[in-house]
Amino acid sequence: MGLTLAEKILSQRAGREVRSGELVVVEVDQVMVVDSIAGSFFKRLEQLGATPRYPEKVAIVIDHVAPAANVEVAKAQKEIREWGKRYGCPVFDVGRGICHQVLIEERLALPGGIVLGSDSHSTTYGGVACFGSGMGATDIALAAASGRTWLRVPESVKVTFRGRLNPAVSAKDAALEMVRVLTADGATYMSVEIHLADGAESLTRSQRLTLANLTVEAGAKCGLVVPSGEILELYDVPGWLYPDPDATYVREVEIDLSALTPRVSVPFYVDNVHTVDSVMGKKVDQVFVGTCTNGRLDDLHEVAEVLRGRRVAPGVRMLVIPASSQVLEEATADGTLLTILQAGATLGTPGCGPCMGRHQGVLAPGEVCVSTSNRNFRGRMGAADAEIYLASPRVAAASAVAGFISTPEELNAQDARRKTQDA
Amino acid sequence: MGLTLAEKILSQRAGREVRSGELVVVEVDQVMVVDSIAGSFFKRLEQLGATPRYPEKVAIVIDHVAPAANVEVAKAQKEIREWGKRYGCPVFDVGRGICHQVLIEERLALPGGIVLGSDSHSTTYGGVACFGSGMGATDIALAAASGRTWLRVPESVKVTFRGRLNPAVSAKDAALEMVRVLTADGATYMSVEIHLADGAESLTRSQRLTLANLTVEAGAKCGLVVPSGEILELYDVPGWLYPDPDATYVREVEIDLSALTPRVSVPFYVDNVHTVDSVMGKKVDQVFVGTCTNGRLDDLHEVAEVLRGRRVAPGVRMLVIPASSQVLEEATADGTLLTILQAGATLGTPGCGPCMGRHQGVLAPGEVCVSTSNRNFRGRMGAADAEIYLASPRVAAASAVAGFISTPEELNAQDARRKTQDA
Repeated sequence: MGLTLAEKILSQRAGREVRSGELVVVEVDQVMVVDSIAGSFFKRLEQLGATPRYPEKVAIVIDHVAPAANVEVAKAQKEIREWGKRYGCPVFDVGRGICHQVLIEERLALPGGIVLGSDSHSTTYGGVACFGSGMGATDIALAAASGRTWLRVPESVKVTFRGRLNPAVSAKDAALEMVRVLTADGATYMSVEIHLADGAESLTRSQRLTLANLTVEAGAKCGLVVPSGEILELYDVPGWLYPDPDATYVREVEIDLSALTPRVSVPFYVDNVHTVDSVMGKKVDQVFVGTCTNGRLDDLHEVAEVLRGRRVAPGVRMLVIPASSQVLEEATADGTLLTILQAGATLGTPGCGPCMGRHQGVLAPGEVCVSTSNRNFRGRMGAADAEIYLASPRVAAASAVAGFISTPEELNAQDARRKTQDA
Repeated sequence: MGLTLAEKILSQRAGREVRSGELVVVEVDQVMVVDSIAGSFFKRLEQLGATPRYPEKVAIVIDHVAPAANVEVAKAQKEIREWGKRYGCPVFDVGRGICHQVLIEERLALPGGIVLGSDSHSTTYGGVACFGSGMGATDIALAAASGRTWLRVPESVKVTFRGRLNPAVSAKDAALEMVRVLTADGATYMSVEIHLADGAESLTRSQRLTLANLTVEAGAKCGLVVPSGEILELYDVPGWLYPDPDATYVREVEIDLSALTPRVSVPFYVDNVHTVDSVMGKKVDQVFVGTCTNGRLDDLHEVAEVLRGRRVAPGVRMLVIPASSQVLEEATADGTLLTILQAGATLGTPGCGPCMGRHQGVLAPGEVCVSTSNRNFRGRMGAADAEIYLASPRVAAASAVAGFISTPEELNAQDARRKTQDA
């Protein structure tokens, strides 16, 4: 019987064939620590009496509250810089961007590799078929100290996306649909192995990262997209990095991309996914475009396309926070940013922004936010009764223009009706 | 005996000739309230049982902590929006920019006018010969309720800037030199009347705003720049809006712009102004370009000129926060932003940024910041022992590249030395 992609990666690294349920100890290519966990991470290492075994493989990214929002945060960030210098660990400082995006850009997460991050959305690396997984400060500290980690080889759920997205639909919609089908605990401690077929191989790296990012919302240990298309152009993909045709899956799911319509995840659970139509017209106070889910250049392109020649509705704050300095620079160079600003949106420092409600756009009681992020739990972005609707960049941008949840297609239809009335 | 410019404006408005020391009650053209004072302002009005007499003349600007850094701030901003809607007062929301810059751009502060702001740097409007003054929530509430305010007509200090700035020197250096000469309490409750002569008339509106902005650091009630040059092109300046040649001044000061060298204000007092040379080499952790003093397009041009083809030094965070959405848009359109980003600087949402240490770049204990802002008091930007060196955008940018306090000229000299060694 064949091996799943997760089994392949862990077998290759273990130097023997391992199967789901087994315990393995494996070398780790990269440990990633975010600013908000760094303090606990330092303390755990100290308690272990240990230092990073391979300092160059322990990256610390200042992204969750950057620039510093108060003196406590500033002190913690200063400690990160000093610690990084002391032990020779790279620190990606304020403004460089969101950890996951930075690791992809810096090519620290590669196909077939293993990356452990102190952030739950470390499943993102699976977009390039890298075994990425989030862990707590203690496990991360042990990995940093030893260069290795132990894992129970996960079972796998196979999710096959078939066909091509129609232009009104984004990878985010596919990701939300996947979470809906799997449910919030439908893949707990599993590998969500994503197969792209019948045209879906054309999904870009960025779109694959969005899919892998959201697998953790079904409880996944990792989310691995089988390499194809752009991934083969961007990376040297090892020949063994494919699941066997006769691998064993706990469950198999198929999603037809060509039949998919725009989706929204409705408060207060990520898997509470509905069609946009079902919440169309809901009044919006804030729109947030960004995060490790949807803050990349193609996401900003989607937004600019919708905003071009339009204005953000009065009474709506539209915040656009690129996922990294590279994304911001590219969006500035190619005119995307100008289009977004001309529509009346505003910009934030590359990083996580208000995704966790810790600064830069915290929601007041009763406010409604359409966000391209990945979590809409109660209180996630501020007040406990504030509502977060998770959507694609296109739907977010259209909602900013309309002042209520909408789609670009609905905006276009309104424009057409207006022209007919004028004529 | 003639009248000073402050006496002219208040006489014209009072409908009779008034002189320093007299009390007048005058109509106010514009009341400006910032987010951080708005709550007290609303409460005072409520206590008075009053509402804004001329709602369209009461502008509220959300700039001090924008986007909202926590739920309390978010609630306060929500209240501002609801209050503005209830009474018909314009609200300039998150990302529109810093109050003073917004009022200038929206032409709500005009030559010969009177604008009362809830922010101390409301003297800024004097750059366009508008009587701008900062007041507390109670006075502002009375002005909003009645459309008028009472004032003791201020005495005036005459500051004459002569000659042209050499290219190594900025209006900020002139402003700091003025504060040094006047001292921190040298113009308390006075009008600092700024005369430009012998070429200094060529100072732009933006440069005049910088001069007027800093007059409050000498304790001024207002700072009025006598109209000339660009101001006459941008505005219909009333014929009466000039001081009489035989006006009476408490003190007269002359500053030769052509002989001026770059200045730095050293912690912890704004009037502790020295030549850059005297602090050259001081190690820097953060550089902040922005604020109502130096966050305009010409300031960003100065910065881009220094950064072009260079990189921000490792270990230095450089934050650039445009003073308004208009500035950000223009800097994006003309390539300035791209140059700044390519050098490794990062960007913040238009607004006050970390100037008051409330978010977006708060300083940790022991950190050193070169800032283009206007106050370097103990604890102003965060930790009590953090040091803020106030400087021009040019010096700030050069310091970011060097990693210590420096000037563009010093960077150029180093580059030249390096080339000679290489040859």
